Amino acid sequence: VNSVFGNLGTTIFTVMSALAVEHGAINLGQGFPDDEGPDDVRAAAAKALIDGPNQYPPMPGVPALRQAVAVANKRFYGLDIDWQKEVLVTSGATEALGDCLMGLLNPGDEAIILEPAYDSYKPMIEAMGAKVVSVALEPPFWSLPIEKLASAFSDKTKLILLNTPMNPTGKVFTLVELQAIADLVVRHDAYAVCDEVYEHLVFSGHRHIPLMTLPGMRERCVRIGSAGKTFSLTGWKIGYITGPEHLMTPIMKAHQFVTFTTPPALQTAIAFGLGKEDSYFEALASSLEAKRDLMAAGLREVGFDVLPTDGTYFITVDFRPLGFNGTDEEFCRDITVKAKVAAIPLSAFYAPDAPQVPRHLVRFCFCKQDAIITEAGARLKDYA
Amino acid sequence: VNSVFGNLGTTIFTVMSALAVEHGAINLGQGFPDDEGPDDVRAAAAKALIDGPNQYPPMPGVPALRQAVAVANKRFYGLDIDWQKEVLVTSGATEALGDCLMGLLNPGDEAIILEPAYDSYKPMIEAMGAKVVSVALEPPFWSLPIEKLASAFSDKTKLILLNTPMNPTGKVFTLVELQAIADLVVRHDAYAVCDEVYEHLVFSGHRHIPLMTLPGMRERCVRIGSAGKTFSLTGWKIGYITGPEHLMTPIMKAHQFVTFTTPPALQTAIAFGLGKEDSYFEALASSLEAKRDLMAAGLREVGFDVLPTDGTYFITVDFRPLGFNGTDEEFCRDITVKAKVAAIPLSAFYAPDAPQVPRHLVRFCFCKQDAIITEAGARLKDYA
Ligand SMILES: CSCCC(=O)C(=O)O
Ligand SMILES: CSCCC(=O)C(=O)O
Repeated sequence: VNSVFGNLGTTIFTVMSALAVEHGAINLGQGFPDDEGPDDVRAAAAKALIDGPNQYPPMPGVPALRQAVAVANKRFYGLDIDWQKEVLVTSGATEALGDCLMGLLNPGDEAIILEPAYDSYKPMIEAMGAKVVSVALEPPFWSLPIEKLASAFSDKTKLILLNTPMNPTGKVFTLVELQAIADLVVRHDAYAVCDEVYEHLVFSGHRHIPLMTLPGMRERCVRIGSAGKTFSLTGWKIGYITGPEHLMTPIMKAHQFVTFTTPPALQTAIAFGLGKEDSYFEALASSLEAKRDLMAAGLREVGFDVLPTDGTYFITVDFRPLGFNGTDEEFCRDITVKAKVAAIPLSAFYAPDAPQVPRHLVRFCFCKQDAIITEAGARLKDYA
Repeated sequence: VNSVFGNLGTTIFTVMSALAVEHGAINLGQGFPDDEGPDDVRAAAAKALIDGPNQYPPMPGVPALRQAVAVANKRFYGLDIDWQKEVLVTSGATEALGDCLMGLLNPGDEAIILEPAYDSYKPMIEAMGAKVVSVALEPPFWSLPIEKLASAFSDKTKLILLNTPMNPTGKVFTLVELQAIADLVVRHDAYAVCDEVYEHLVFSGHRHIPLMTLPGMRERCVRIGSAGKTFSLTGWKIGYITGPEHLMTPIMKAHQFVTFTTPPALQTAIAFGLGKEDSYFEALASSLEAKRDLMAAGLREVGFDVLPTDGTYFITVDFRPLGFNGTDEEFCRDITVKAKVAAIPLSAFYAPDAPQVPRHLVRFCFCKQDAIITEAGARLKDYA
């Protein structure tokens, strides 16, 4: 069996979700909202299933959705995107990421990732026979060590994988940081695969800036968005990639053989969703910001050191002030079993052999009903 | 960009569908039905979208669908399948195939395919750094040259990819042929990836036999099914893989990072569909058989030599009796432009450098309304 996939354990999200079920714990591990997404978007999909078509849509996606993605790029970021050549709809952002790596990497290439990193990055790069070069951000502010990043680039660097807003840290990269990354990408004639699935989940005082909007970056970046995250419908598995034709062409070829296409009824409904007024996107972000504040307050009550989070579904805490004597993984198991609250250890976002793995941080997901957030805080307080 | 995907042209299905649209032709190229699939299955999906859940289902699939797949394996083939460890739901059979190849192949391995072969097989094998070894079936009966197959196996053979019922030929492999394949798989300690997406589309006098049901094969085969084909819902992109745990484990790891999961509402509806009575599956096959007969008669009227087809959506003809002077690709363009009927050249199912590529055969798709089939025959008759 394949040496990359054959040697992997089960994803931490599945492990912790199963443990949460086993112990009847509140699941603040895997990142998904506990509501059902907008009624009108779901109704549009239901209608499209009944009305049809239900056969293969075009391989790059339903025209209405590709157009909507191009329009959203203009509306939110001022980007001019040709919907026919520069947009690809995928079966989720996970597939989008895989298509980008399969379409762009060759065996022997190097790909730079920033740790902590989402768990699919490393195996998908390695499955293509490419080498992962990782650079660790520095807690508690997850600052980008520019010197270290510069020395991670080499002649073999094909691309950097950039996730902003960033899971699990909640970091939103600043213009200064993005400029430094852009300079290195240009200097090394490389590309950037930009995982921007949390683009609309950014809180007061911060703004999401696609790397693609920086000078020189339009032709070097592919940008991944997620309907699951933007419409709180994580099960729908609709993602989209935007990028210049010379990069999209091989990426579309990979997509053609990875899933070929994505259910048309769901695509049609997401095209409708992306046309919603600004108030929808603002309410999404401000509702999540309120949940972040509620959870941060609760976790501070418990006695955790709460790290800043400026976007995404996630908040990270340092549990050392509680006096727990063990690793982040042990802490997560302990609170699942004893406090009946599940979380994700930050070390799960690092390669097993990474040099600087924090063992004192855990991630909680706050895209949950307020009552659940409050109850989780109360349970952890009793536990502490 | 990637050397496998970067060098591929657009899939023939997309090219011919676009040409059909351009010329207002009846599209008998890409294989999809022109009805909308069962009303009750679509209604079940619409209801599940409204009722929820719409968040991530479990990575291997919704339990109801995994159970339904296991039950269907028992009902149709007498196979005992553990739904928790031996079934994986994927975002279409195309993803299923990719997951199997990514999960099982290592760079340097060899994978055997039988030509003519579906167009995703070769690039996905090569993208894994493995080598394609192809064996050509012999028209007009697409017989399997056992001696050639035997010499295609080597110490490096990791797997054979077997498609029965077979696209584009309509061939249903016989027990004798399957036994020969099974013997070689055992002798070379290899696996078989069985693309059985047309398992329920088999016509009178023929029976689909999964290779997995042969002695010694239960532990060496993974079997791919397709809800798109079984319920005439090709846009839904729901596939399933059944196989022994030791093979499913790495395949599930690949799936975890390729799409992670598949929309739960559609999975729930397909679980319902797989529970339909025998009459549903019988009516599906007999309705297609009648369409095959209607189209075969029409194509004979035109003057084609019509090759036998015992299953699938497809029928193949030899156009030489029409006196056309050119390749199969030229013939397909000619009839699209002049007769306003689109088809697929058989040579598209062969590697560009394959030794024995037939250039006188084209494939028509017959899963269309009777009136369309009749009209296509009439147009071709006028053209001929
Ligand atoms: C695809 S399951 C993981 C969901 C997620 O993005 C996370 O929890 O980090
Ligand atoms: C995924 S598009 C091709 C559909 C098909 O199976 C065929 O026409 O052979």
